[in-house]
Amino acid sequence: MLFPKGKEFFERIDLIAQNVLESAKALQDFIANSPTSAAKLKVLEDKEHEGDRLTHDVIELLNKTFITPLDREDIHELVSAMDDILDYIFGSADRMVLYKIPYISDEFKALSRVLVRTAEEVAKAALRLKDLKNSQMILAQCIEINRMENEADEAHRHAVAMLFEKEKDPVNIIKIKEILDHMETATDRCEDVANVIESIVLKNA
Amino acid sequence: MLFPKGKEFFERIDLIAQNVLESAKALQDFIANSPTSAAKLKVLEDKEHEGDRLTHDVIELLNKTFITPLDREDIHELVSAMDDILDYIFGSADRMVLYKIPYISDEFKALSRVLVRTAEEVAKAALRLKDLKNSQMILAQCIEINRMENEADEAHRHAVAMLFEKEKDPVNIIKIKEILDHMETATDRCEDVANVIESIVLKNA
Amino acid sequence: MLFPKGKEFFERIDLIAQNVLESAKALQDFIANSPTSAAKLKVLEDKEHEGDRLTHDVIELLNKTFITPLDREDIHELVSAMDDILDYIFGSADRMVLYKIPYISDEFKALSRVLVRTAEEVAKAALRLKDLKNSQMILAQCIEINRMENEADEAHRHAVAMLFEKEKDPVNIIKIKEILDHMETATDRCEDVANVIESIVLKNA
Repeated sequence: MLFPKGKEFFERIDLIAQNVLESAKALQDFIANSPTSAAKLKVLEDKEHEGDRLTHDVIELLNKTFITPLDREDIHELVSAMDDILDYIFGSADRMVLYKIPYISDEFKALSRVLVRTAEEVAKAALRLKDLKNSQMILAQCIEINRMENEADEAHRHAVAMLFEKEKDPVNIIKIKEILDHMETATDRCEDVANVIESIVLKNA
Repeated sequence: MLFPKGKEFFERIDLIAQNVLESAKALQDFIANSPTSAAKLKVLEDKEHEGDRLTHDVIELLNKTFITPLDREDIHELVSAMDDILDYIFGSADRMVLYKIPYISDEFKALSRVLVRTAEEVAKAALRLKDLKNSQMILAQCIEINRMENEADEAHRHAVAMLFEKEKDPVNIIKIKEILDHMETATDRCEDVANVIESIVLKNA
Repeated sequence: MLFPKGKEFFERIDLIAQNVLESAKALQDFIANSPTSAAKLKVLEDKEHEGDRLTHDVIELLNKTFITPLDREDIHELVSAMDDILDYIFGSADRMVLYKIPYISDEFKALSRVLVRTAEEVAKAALRLKDLKNSQMILAQCIEINRMENEADEAHRHAVAMLFEKEKDPVNIIKIKEILDHMETATDRCEDVANVIESIVLKNA
């Protein structure tokens, strides 16, 4: 490691990515079991707050570190982009409770599974970032995130088509569609992280 | 000031931030008093056009200035991000008229108050940018914007839950929810400005 | 051309912009004629895949080229921003089929016409990028994109007002409004491209 604080930065980036992955798994658990469970929602809220704290710590570390392993603004953009995923994960569960949605459809379950798998790919890409010289491998990992995002998009399209097919109450449609859209935006935010990582790799190629 | 045009750039950034704050106040006024008043909507439209003009002037100045106090692309990103707030402020009022919404709920008023307070914090952060050495203070100001955005998020969640509770007409729900979402996006855009400012501070730390 | 691969990069940027323009025209054709035609939807899907391939090729070329005519991260941001337009163009047509929308309104046609004209301005701006010294002309072209985006915004506002006026079925409103919003987001993404181009011009001024 060429930079005195290099290891610390990459460890923190990894921690943030792991928190995103755990949050996606907590959402899958929340949906699979008991969507109105206040205790399980609390798990997701705690992970979101943990994400805010971790992101803030990186910003503080950036501000007081003289030499950083990547450009400061790039590390900032990366951790901010990962933090954005968390907001949409928590927001999806939160709205299920807040809107008092009448039932949990299979489509919610399908979307939450794709989200977990996308978050796994994000965590792998974040971990590989410390090995910048291996640009081909990191870029391949970003393509994998894009592929997962396309899968999420397909799952979302199917979910919304099913919703219009099966649900006839307009207010239920409004509520459920917003949550489906929110879950799909969470995977869109994963793709944004892939974009930031690609940009970092190319800049340092 | 080390740069010949430094003072001028910071004055213009400040002007744009003040225009955002005035626009947020005009929206609060619009909502508090007479939502269908064409005259008050005109005030908001004028402020949006003023914002476009101010942003365009900064781009022109950037293009003809040799040395700038911050990287050109950063000043461009900052003024563009502030301009985005204006679009959502005007868009919220505009939709109230265009959609002929049936009533102004207390939730609109609550959200517009939080938006004014968030815009006040944005204006403070923009003003402090000229004192880049004082990075701690500027970053603390950005945290304040994030805190206000969380408050807006809470107000928005409450507003949408109330809407589903009280309003039973689906078309009214669609109209009012979009405006509530639009107002919340305006505070999201304030957070984007905080992100740009953080990035500038860290890059120059 | 000062850079060995300069010509190749600008040719590829131009190809991507042309693909966006053709995609906008294919959407206009799709809407004008037979919205449920699987064959015409396939044209749009092919163009989206072609866009993914072209974008990916540029990333590969960036990763293996030593000296690039613009900063690598800027070329990456530009082609990613252009690719985003494609997603919203295809997504608009795709949803018309998927949601089984009951009719094609004149408002869809009007919005698709403005989108084609905006994409034409994007293609012109992308083409001019190779002549970076002529910054005034490129910036003027970006203002033209912004002007078109304002026109699209007007067309969208009118379309949504008409929808609330004429359509009384809430589920139809939900479906049609989302597609109108999607088409308007496609022109928003054109404005994002203008923003990236402005930023590149100013950075290199």
